[in-house]
Amino acid sequence: MSSTKKSDFEELLEIVRKVCDLRAAASMLEWDQETYMPRGAGEARARQLSTLYSTSHEIFIRDRTGELIERLRGEECDPMGFQESLVRVTERDFSRACKLSPEMVGKIAETTSNAKAAWVEAFNENDFGKFSGDLSKVIGLCIEKAEAIGYSEHPYDALLDEYEPGATSGQISRVFDDLRASLVPIVQAIEYAPQPVHDFLQLSYDSDIQWDFGMEVLRDIGFDFRRGRQDISTHPFSTAFSTNDVRITTRIHDRHVVSGLFSSLHEAGHGMYEQGINPMLEGTFLAQGTSLGIHESQSRLWENQVGRSKAFWTCYYRDLQQRFKKQLGEISREKFYQAINCVAASPVRVDADEVTYNLHIMLRFELEMMLIDEEISVHELPELWTDRMRKYLGVQPENDTKGVLQDIHWALGAIGYFPTYTLGNLMSAQIFSCAKTALIDLDDQIARGEFAPLRDWLQTNVYHWGRMLSATEIIEWLTKGPISADPWLHYIRQKYSAIYGDLP
Amino acid sequence: MSSTKKSDFEELLEIVRKVCDLRAAASMLEWDQETYMPRGAGEARARQLSTLYSTSHEIFIRDRTGELIERLRGEECDPMGFQESLVRVTERDFSRACKLSPEMVGKIAETTSNAKAAWVEAFNENDFGKFSGDLSKVIGLCIEKAEAIGYSEHPYDALLDEYEPGATSGQISRVFDDLRASLVPIVQAIEYAPQPVHDFLQLSYDSDIQWDFGMEVLRDIGFDFRRGRQDISTHPFSTAFSTNDVRITTRIHDRHVVSGLFSSLHEAGHGMYEQGINPMLEGTFLAQGTSLGIHESQSRLWENQVGRSKAFWTCYYRDLQQRFKKQLGEISREKFYQAINCVAASPVRVDADEVTYNLHIMLRFELEMMLIDEEISVHELPELWTDRMRKYLGVQPENDTKGVLQDIHWALGAIGYFPTYTLGNLMSAQIFSCAKTALIDLDDQIARGEFAPLRDWLQTNVYHWGRMLSATEIIEWLTKGPISADPWLHYIRQKYSAIYGDLP
Repeated sequence: MSSTKKSDFEELLEIVRKVCDLRAAASMLEWDQETYMPRGAGEARARQLSTLYSTSHEIFIRDRTGELIERLRGEECDPMGFQESLVRVTERDFSRACKLSPEMVGKIAETTSNAKAAWVEAFNENDFGKFSGDLSKVIGLCIEKAEAIGYSEHPYDALLDEYEPGATSGQISRVFDDLRASLVPIVQAIEYAPQPVHDFLQLSYDSDIQWDFGMEVLRDIGFDFRRGRQDISTHPFSTAFSTNDVRITTRIHDRHVVSGLFSSLHEAGHGMYEQGINPMLEGTFLAQGTSLGIHESQSRLWENQVGRSKAFWTCYYRDLQQRFKKQLGEISREKFYQAINCVAASPVRVDADEVTYNLHIMLRFELEMMLIDEEISVHELPELWTDRMRKYLGVQPENDTKGVLQDIHWALGAIGYFPTYTLGNLMSAQIFSCAKTALIDLDDQIARGEFAPLRDWLQTNVYHWGRMLSATEIIEWLTKGPISADPWLHYIRQKYSAIYGDLP
Repeated sequence: MSSTKKSDFEELLEIVRKVCDLRAAASMLEWDQETYMPRGAGEARARQLSTLYSTSHEIFIRDRTGELIERLRGEECDPMGFQESLVRVTERDFSRACKLSPEMVGKIAETTSNAKAAWVEAFNENDFGKFSGDLSKVIGLCIEKAEAIGYSEHPYDALLDEYEPGATSGQISRVFDDLRASLVPIVQAIEYAPQPVHDFLQLSYDSDIQWDFGMEVLRDIGFDFRRGRQDISTHPFSTAFSTNDVRITTRIHDRHVVSGLFSSLHEAGHGMYEQGINPMLEGTFLAQGTSLGIHESQSRLWENQVGRSKAFWTCYYRDLQQRFKKQLGEISREKFYQAINCVAASPVRVDADEVTYNLHIMLRFELEMMLIDEEISVHELPELWTDRMRKYLGVQPENDTKGVLQDIHWALGAIGYFPTYTLGNLMSAQIFSCAKTALIDLDDQIARGEFAPLRDWLQTNVYHWGRMLSATEIIEWLTKGPISADPWLHYIRQKYSAIYGDLP
C-alpha cells in the first residue's frame, strides 16, 4: 500500500469529519430550539442553521471529494472494512448531494419553509384550502427532485432512498399488500369484540412522579445517561451529536399515566441504537443509524415488544402502583396490561394503537405514490383520505385537522418518509423474534428486570454496525430472508387473541 | 454610488454573517457544555468546537475578504455609519486574524489545552510545580504571538488589545498607579475599623426560594426572558448567540443568601448589554460588546452600583425577609445592607468584596507585565505572588491553590484579560455617576423598583452602539474625559465611610 493512497483516505476522512462536525452542530442548535431556546430567538436561529447546512454542503460537494472517492474506490482495504464502508457510503451520499443543484436546494428550503407556515395555519383553522397551494408546489418540487436524482423503476424510489437506502416502492407495495390483506380482517374482528376497561388510565397522574418513574425505567433498560440525557419538548424526538452525546425528549400528560413512558421508551430505543454504534466510526457518516426503518425498529422494539409486554409489567407494575396508589391501587396487573393494549381505531395516527397504526401508514404511502405519479392532484386528497380511512379503519375524521392535515411531514417535503414507520414495525418483530430464539428465556429476563442480555444482543447484531451494514443486510443476516410482515402478524395475532379472543 | 461598490459591501456582509453564524454555533455548543452536556461527551464536543472555529477562521481570512476591505475602505458611506463601522471593525479583526498563522493558532490551541489539564491537576493537588512547565510554554507562545501581532510600545499591548481594543499597558499602569496609591490606605483603614455583623448571611437558605427570588429580580430590572434565559452552571457566565438569544447562568449556594443573586445581577448586566444592541447590527461583528472592560462595567454596575446599594434593598429587603422569615425576621434592613457590604481582605479574588477586588487585579497585571517582559520567570511566581498579596492586601494565601493557582486564565493563554476587570469597575462608576446626573432621582427610582429609566439610559448611551463606538469613545462621550479612577474612589469613600467611619 503506497503512502500516497494512504493519505488520500486520510484526506477524505478529514473532509467527512468536518462535514459531520458541522452537521452535529446544526443538530445541537435544533435540539436547543425544541427544548430551551427563548421564543424570540427563532429568526437568528434559522439563519444560523441555514449557514451550518450550506457550509457543510459546500465543503462536502467540492470536486476534491469526488476525486478522492474516485481514487479510493476499489482500493485494497483494512480487514475491518472501515475504509471500504466509509468510501461506499460517502460515495452514495456524495452522488445524491451533487445531483441537487444549490439552486434546487435553496428552492426546496424556501418552498417547504413557506409550506410549513401555511400548514400551521391550515391545521389551526381546519382549512385544507389554505395549505393545498403550497402543498402542490412541494409535490412539484419532489417530482423534480426525483428526476434530478434518478431511479430505475418509479420516481418515488428516488425519494424513498433518502430515508431507506436501497428500498423500492415495488418491494414496499408487495409487503404492504400482504400486510393489508391480513390486517383489515383482524381490525374488524377486534372491533366486534368487547373492549377491556381502560378509563382509569386517564385519571390525574402527577407529572413529576411520572418523570421519575420514566427516568428509572430508562436507567434500567440501559440508556446511558453519562452519554445522553432526557428533556421535555412539545414533540418527542431523539438526536445525536456523537455516539457519546445522545439526547432524547418526551412529553408527559398528567391525564395519562403511561403515554409519557411509552414515548420515553420509544425515543430511548432510538437513542440506545446511536449510543451503541462502534466508537471506531465516531465522527463519520458511518456513525448513524443505517436507515430510518431500522431506526424505527429499535424504537418500536422497546416501546411495544418490550414496553407493552406482560413480562415488562410483571417487573414494573407493583412499582407504578406504589407511586399511584389512589389511582391504581384496585387495578390488577392483568387489567392494566389489557388497558394499555386496548385497540381502538382512531382517525389520528399518533393516537393509534400498535394494531391499527400500520393502516395509517399504508394510506399515506398509497396517496404519496399517486401524487408523485401525478395520478391524483392535491385537491383530491381530503376526499381520498376520508374514503380510505373509512375502508381501512372504519372511522371517519371529524375534520381535516384530524384527517389529511394531521401530519407535518408533507409540508416539510418528506415524501417517502412514512413507509419507514411500518418497515420499522415489521422489522422490530423480525428482530425481536430472533432475539427471543437466541436468548431463550428473554421473557423471564424482562420480568426480572434484566435488560442487559437483550441490549447486548442488539448491540452486537444491530447497534454496533452503524451504516457498515444496510437494513437489508441486517435483516438477511438475522433472519436469512427479506423484510417480511409475517413475524409481526404472528406477534399481533398471538398477543391480541389473548385479549380479544380468536383472530383471523 | 455605483452598483459595483454596493455589491462589494454586500459580499463582505455575506462573509461576515457566515463567520458570525459559525461562531454563534460554537458559543451555543460551549453553553451546552457548561449547562446540559452529559459528562461523556467532552471529546467529540472539543472536536466539533475546533471544526467550527477553524472553519469560520478559514472563511474569514480568505484573500477575498482582504480585497473587499481594501476596496471599501474610505468609501462614501450611509449616514448611520453602519457600513463604515463594519468595514472598520472587520479590517481590525481581519488584520489580527491574518497575523496569526494557522500553525501558530494550532500550537496555541494545543499548548493551552495541555496547560489547562495541567492546571486542573496542579490546582487539585496544590502543586504549582505540576503547572509551571506548561505555563512557561504558554507564556513563551504569548510572547511569540505578541511579536507576530506587533505593537508600538510594549509587547503586552498586542495581547491586551484582543480584550480591550486600543488600550495600552502604559495607560493602564498610570490609572492603576493612581488607584493603588489611594486604595491601599483605604483598605488599611477599614481593617482597623469594627466589622459589621454578617454571619447570618451564611445560615441555610433554600436554593429554590433563592432561585425564584433571583428570577423575579431579573424580570424587574429588565432582563428580557423572551430573548434570553437563565440556567445553572458551576462557573456563572453569560453568552449570546444573537441579540435575541442571550443566555446567563448562575450558581446558588444554600449557605449564602445573596451570592447567587449577585452573580445573577452580574451576568444579567452582561446580558442586558447584549440584548440592547441595535438590532440593525445583528449577525455582524458590530453586534457585540465593544470591549471586555465596557462589558464588565455593565455587569458591575448592576451587581454593585445597583445591587449592593441602599436603594435596591429599600425596594427588595421586605420581600427577601418574607421568603426567609426564620433567618432574616429579626435582622433590620440597615444591618443587612452593612453585612452584604462587609469588607474583608481575602487571598481569593472571586471571594473579594468590591473594595479589595481591584488589588487582586493589579497584582496579576504587574506579574503579567514582568512575565511578558521576561523580567521574571514562571518559577518565581509563587513567591512574588505571596509577597505582593501581603503588601497590597495584608493577607497570605495558605497554599498555592488559594494563591498563584487560583485562576484558570493563564492556563488558557488569556494574558491581558485581567486588567479589563478593573477597567470595568472604574468605568462602571464613571457611567453610573453620569446616569445619576442625567436621571436626577435615580436612587428613589431604584428604591421604588423602577429600573426602566436606568435601563433605557444605558440602552441609549451604551448598549445600543455595540462595536460602533469604542470604549474610549463611550467614556469620552459621557464624561468628556478619559477612563479615570476618581469616580470609583469617590463612590467607595462615600459608601464605605458610612459603614466604617471616615476613610483616607
